[in-house]
Amino acid sequence: MKKIILTGDRPTGKLHIGHYLGSLENRAKLQDEYDQYIIIADVQALTDNFDNPEKVRKNVLEVTMDNLACGIDPDKSTIFIQSMIPEIAELTIFYSNLVTVARLERNPTVKTEISQKKELFGVEGDSLTYGFLGYPVSQTADITAFNADIVPVGEDQLPMIEQAKEIVRKFNSLYGDVITEPKAMIGNVARVKGLDGNNKMGKSLGNAIYLSDNEQTITLKVMSAITDETKIKKYDKANPDKCMVGYYHDIFSEKDKEKVFLECRQGLRGCVDCKKQLASNITKTLAPIREKRKYYEERPELVEQILKEGIKKARKKARQTMKKVKKAMKINYFKNN
Amino acid sequence: MKKIILTGDRPTGKLHIGHYLGSLENRAKLQDEYDQYIIIADVQALTDNFDNPEKVRKNVLEVTMDNLACGIDPDKSTIFIQSMIPEIAELTIFYSNLVTVARLERNPTVKTEISQKKELFGVEGDSLTYGFLGYPVSQTADITAFNADIVPVGEDQLPMIEQAKEIVRKFNSLYGDVITEPKAMIGNVARVKGLDGNNKMGKSLGNAIYLSDNEQTITLKVMSAITDETKIKKYDKANPDKCMVGYYHDIFSEKDKEKVFLECRQGLRGCVDCKKQLASNITKTLAPIREKRKYYEERPELVEQILKEGIKKARKKARQTMKKVKKAMKINYFKNN
Repeated sequence: MKKIILTGDRPTGKLHIGHYLGSLENRAKLQDEYDQYIIIADVQALTDNFDNPEKVRKNVLEVTMDNLACGIDPDKSTIFIQSMIPEIAELTIFYSNLVTVARLERNPTVKTEISQKKELFGVEGDSLTYGFLGYPVSQTADITAFNADIVPVGEDQLPMIEQAKEIVRKFNSLYGDVITEPKAMIGNVARVKGLDGNNKMGKSLGNAIYLSDNEQTITLKVMSAITDETKIKKYDKANPDKCMVGYYHDIFSEKDKEKVFLECRQGLRGCVDCKKQLASNITKTLAPIREKRKYYEERPELVEQILKEGIKKARKKARQTMKKVKKAMKINYFKNN
Repeated sequence: MKKIILTGDRPTGKLHIGHYLGSLENRAKLQDEYDQYIIIADVQALTDNFDNPEKVRKNVLEVTMDNLACGIDPDKSTIFIQSMIPEIAELTIFYSNLVTVARLERNPTVKTEISQKKELFGVEGDSLTYGFLGYPVSQTADITAFNADIVPVGEDQLPMIEQAKEIVRKFNSLYGDVITEPKAMIGNVARVKGLDGNNKMGKSLGNAIYLSDNEQTITLKVMSAITDETKIKKYDKANPDKCMVGYYHDIFSEKDKEKVFLECRQGLRGCVDCKKQLASNITKTLAPIREKRKYYEERPELVEQILKEGIKKARKKARQTMKKVKKAMKINYFKNN
C-alpha cells in the first residue's frame, strides 16, 4: 500500500511562484508515489482572518484551481476543504487535553507567528486568541485524521511536526497504539524571495507573481523588481541578494542565464532589456499552468465536483480514524457508531 | 413555541442527593414548561479525566439512568451524549478565535477549578492543558448549538454564562445575528453539604448518598455522618454547620423535624436513634427514584434506545444551527451543504 502524504494551503490568497517552486511542483510528482491528501485549510485560515471570512471563502476556489493548474490529478490526489471534515474538529478537541498551554506558548513557530501579527494579537501578544494558540493542535488533527505518514514542510515548520509527534505519542501511550506518528519531509527548494528583495514572497507582502498572472501583469511586476546599479556588475550566483532580476534569471532562465550574467558583469546589457527577457521567460514557464488554470476557471462546476469527491473520500478516511479513536478512548457507546 | 433550556451532567460518577436537590428535582418540573436538552458531557468530563476514559464511559449510562429515575420524561426532554454531536466540536473551534487566552485565564470559575486540580495541572497551574483552559469555550458551544435561551446554574457558575454571552456577542457582531444569547437561571436550592460536613457533597469526596444507594447503604452512610456532641444540644437551623444529622433532618424529615430538633436540644434522643430515623426518612424519599432506576437498570436496551433517539433529535437541532453558522461565516461552499 502507498504511504500517505498530507500537504495543503491556507486559502488566504491566490498561489504564487514561491508556492509553485517550494511545494506545488513537487506535489505533482509526489502524487505518483504517495496517496496524497491536499487540505484547503479554511478553518486554520480563519484563526487569523476570523474578521474577514469573505477572503477565506473566495480563496478556497482560487487555491483549488491553482493546485489543479500545477498538475494535481484528482484521480491521484484528494483535494478537500478542512471545514467540511467535522472529524478534524473532534480530533482537535480530544488532542487539546494532551498538550499544556505552556508547551504551546513555547512552540517557536507559534512564537514567531504571534510576533508577526501584532495588529491582531497585540504588541505583547496580550490579545492572542485561544484559537490561534492552538493551531498546532488543530494541525496535528489535520495530519493524523488521514493517517498521514509524511508531511512535506519547510525548515521553519519543523517545530510543528515535533509538536504533532508529541501529541501522537501522548495519545498512543494513554489510549493504545492507534494514531500514526507523522514524519517531516524537508523540501529541497528554498523559499523564494519577493520582487522587492524581501526574503519571502508573500501573499500579503505585495511582492509576488501569481500563477494566474498574465504576460502583461508579469511584465509590469518584473519591471518593478529591485535591481542595484552599483552592485549588479558584480552579480554573484552564490550571493544574489542585491539584484532580484538576476535572482529570478537564475531560477527561470535555464538556457540564457550564463549569457545574462556574463553580459551584466561586462556592462553589455541594460536593466530594461534584461527585465523584458526575464518576464518573457517567466511567462513561458508559467504558460502551461496558466492555460490549465483557464480551463478550470471556465468550468466552475467541474472544480466543485472535484472538491465534492475529494471531500467525500477524505471524510471516509477521517471517519475510519475517528471510529478507531473513539474505540480506543472507550467512548464508542453503541454498536455501529 | 417553548423556550429552550440546556442543562446536564458530567459523567464522572453516579448522581447523588446533592444533584437531586440542586438540579434534577427541578429538571423534572422544567420539562413541562421548556423544551429541555440534557447533555451528558463526556467530552467535558475528559478534560480532567483524559487519563481515565473508562470512568467517563461507565458513568454515561449511570447518569442517564439517574436522570430518568428522577422523572425525566424522554418524550419531553432530549437526553444526549456530547461526543456524539460533532457540531459542538466544530462550533468550539470557531468560537476559539473569538476569545483571548488572557480572558480565559481571568475567568474566576476556571481559576478556582485549576487551583482545585493541583495533582493534574500542577501547583502553579503550569501543567494546565490547552483543553481545560478552553472548557468555557466548549460550554458556550454546548449551549448555543441547541439555541438555548436558558441555562440553570449555581451562583459559582455565573462567570461561565458571562463568558458565553461575550463569545456570542462577538460572533454576532462579526458574522450577523445568528446565535441566541443565553440567560442564566439561578437555582433556588443551595448546594448540599456532604456527610463529612464538607460544604460540597461531591462524587470525588466520598461524602455522598447516591440516588442508587439502597436502604442498607444509606443507613451505613448516615451512621458515619458527622455530629458534634458538644454542639448538638444547641442545634440551630439557621447555622446548622455542626451536626450533619440535624442538617439532613431539616431537608428530609419534613414531618418529624420540629420534634427531632426539640428532643435533641432537650437531650431526649441519642445520636444512634436519631441517625436511624434520618436514614429511614432518606430511604423513603428516595424510594420512588430507586424503584424507577431499578426499572431502567433491568432494561439497558431501553436506556440505549432513549439515548439514541435523544442523540438523533439533538443532532438535528445542532445541524440546523451549524448550517446557519456556516452561512453567516460564509463557509457554506455548496448548495445543500
